[in-house]
Amino acid sequence: MRFLPNLPKKWRCNRPTADHLSGVCSIFDLIPDRNIVGAVSNSFQQNFLSQLITYGDLTGSPPFVTHGLPASIFKKGVQVAALDPASARSPADVRADIRAGKIRGHTSGMAHGFVQANLVILPKPWAEDFLQFCLANPKPCPLVAVGKPGDPALPTLGPGIDIRTDVPKYCILRDGQPVGESHDITDLWGDNFVSFLIGCSFSFEGALIDAGLEVRHIALDRNVPMFRTNIPCEPAGRFSGNLVVSMRPFQALDAIRAVEVTSRMPQVHGSPVHIGDPSRIGIIDVTQPDYGDSVPVADGELPVFWACGVTPQLAIAQARPPIAITHSPGCMLVTDIRDESLLDGDFRFEPGPI
Amino acid sequence: MRFLPNLPKKWRCNRPTADHLSGVCSIFDLIPDRNIVGAVSNSFQQNFLSQLITYGDLTGSPPFVTHGLPASIFKKGVQVAALDPASARSPADVRADIRAGKIRGHTSGMAHGFVQANLVILPKPWAEDFLQFCLANPKPCPLVAVGKPGDPALPTLGPGIDIRTDVPKYCILRDGQPVGESHDITDLWGDNFVSFLIGCSFSFEGALIDAGLEVRHIALDRNVPMFRTNIPCEPAGRFSGNLVVSMRPFQALDAIRAVEVTSRMPQVHGSPVHIGDPSRIGIIDVTQPDYGDSVPVADGELPVFWACGVTPQLAIAQARPPIAITHSPGCMLVTDIRDESLLDGDFRFEPGPI
Repeated sequence: MRFLPNLPKKWRCNRPTADHLSGVCSIFDLIPDRNIVGAVSNSFQQNFLSQLITYGDLTGSPPFVTHGLPASIFKKGVQVAALDPASARSPADVRADIRAGKIRGHTSGMAHGFVQANLVILPKPWAEDFLQFCLANPKPCPLVAVGKPGDPALPTLGPGIDIRTDVPKYCILRDGQPVGESHDITDLWGDNFVSFLIGCSFSFEGALIDAGLEVRHIALDRNVPMFRTNIPCEPAGRFSGNLVVSMRPFQALDAIRAVEVTSRMPQVHGSPVHIGDPSRIGIIDVTQPDYGDSVPVADGELPVFWACGVTPQLAIAQARPPIAITHSPGCMLVTDIRDESLLDGDFRFEPGPI
Repeated sequence: MRFLPNLPKKWRCNRPTADHLSGVCSIFDLIPDRNIVGAVSNSFQQNFLSQLITYGDLTGSPPFVTHGLPASIFKKGVQVAALDPASARSPADVRADIRAGKIRGHTSGMAHGFVQANLVILPKPWAEDFLQFCLANPKPCPLVAVGKPGDPALPTLGPGIDIRTDVPKYCILRDGQPVGESHDITDLWGDNFVSFLIGCSFSFEGALIDAGLEVRHIALDRNVPMFRTNIPCEPAGRFSGNLVVSMRPFQALDAIRAVEVTSRMPQVHGSPVHIGDPSRIGIIDVTQPDYGDSVPVADGELPVFWACGVTPQLAIAQARPPIAITHSPGCMLVTDIRDESLLDGDFRFEPGPI
């Protein structure tokens, strides 16, 4: 164990997770009198911690710990910022604040290292078709949980979850079209409503940064660029539509590494669906996304395309169910599932009949 | 279990391993009165067995069995060819014939499903540097075994192996340059000679075909195209040089699958080192390989480049050891290690000091 310069010796880095040579930033929860616990962030700029990581102990893998204390960001051993206290908080604490109305917006960066999930709620007759659509299209719609009809609990994602109150903002759709937003859907809830929780790219982006890759839109502090493609989804019942993809540019060797990393996370979209020439999947101009923000593709970089969680929203717009409820973009369900457990197989979702 | 049309019911396909929708060929050992045992071939043309596989039972995974009987190839249930008897023979039987001088050429297609390995033999003072070179460059030089100085046995690769007699043809190099070939190096063997066995792309090509991909040079019955690159290897002691790569073209989705498949086989070169634009790694014309045969890259395909076992030969030519012995191209050591055990981690090589 080596200790950090300009930091108390008791602040140790036991488990750095980013490639310190790449200059990619990781956030470490720096907790006085405790180990420094690594948690990859996808919401901060590069280079904050490269020096800190360099001096960390690159071996060892203690259990993941989060803590209620605000943590700090150091640059070359000097404190430059305090971490959002929510980053080091437990998923249960974040959900409690959401339920109490204290958090009503984006959940990005909260409860670092835990899976956040997309939400789709449908009445049972539509839910049966939608389950088949998800199972037939696991890359855009990787299920992490399906609720029981009428039951707002999701015990496999966290004790005490009430899906009617534990998402910061909901989007209400009638006949497939958005008609309004709400912070609480208790009044709308029906006794045959089924919740679908779908894996989210936050987890695999964390893993990419963890592997030392620069994720362009995060480095630029933008939303990921997303595109409609000409790739049809497998239809199921009343649901059909084309695949929506997100794009992240990489140099070839990093693109290969990105395939390796994400292939191990099938429950958060898995490996890419396309690499290289965007026109092959019906994208005319890779700098003009249909959703999200544009990011530059540098000379020699390959655009890499992953199946995107916006796909089911298009399928819902096409199917026109009388009512559907989704999360508002970025306002996710924060679960108790660790990102890591997607990699090591600790967490697996096995769908049954609704 | 469904049975094959036009075949005795006792010939069953318990374990087809290729994607029967893709039309890619797998060879099955068809053994009367026994199960048909799947063994992916990389030496036959497409479409032979697609109909056969279609009618096979796509579930179940009995133990891998090979058998001394010649097997047959069926097309749509009609026998169209007999398999080379050597394909269904055990590695020990193949080695015995090599040692007896009955096999003096290529080992391609023999003992299907078992790892074949590249050979480099060096005197101990050079072997120590070369071991470091392999460890520093695991993608081009993935070690599967290192012999003890002076000891021609390789017990982890098969009982009774004598590396002086069990390779069909050897290439002798003095001062890094080839000076002759031999079928037996017993007379040349020195009491400080160290054998290095290096994983070979035969294994990962089998896995690619297994995954339903077309491997172009195999489909065309050509040698794989290989190129010198501008990527320097990590030097170690007296060994250095640029990386040599092999190239296989794929449509984007198949390229992604190829990364996934080969990333799980680090002991036979692992994942690619480059994808897309050949000029990025110093290749001027992808249709003009430095070694092997040219294969076409079709419209919309990406050339995918893997680290190649020719790399150490360049390093030896550069280092100019007074003596070195390698296998002649294609004339490999046939081991008792199953290709599968590279995937499931049954087989692992842990290098120690020489």
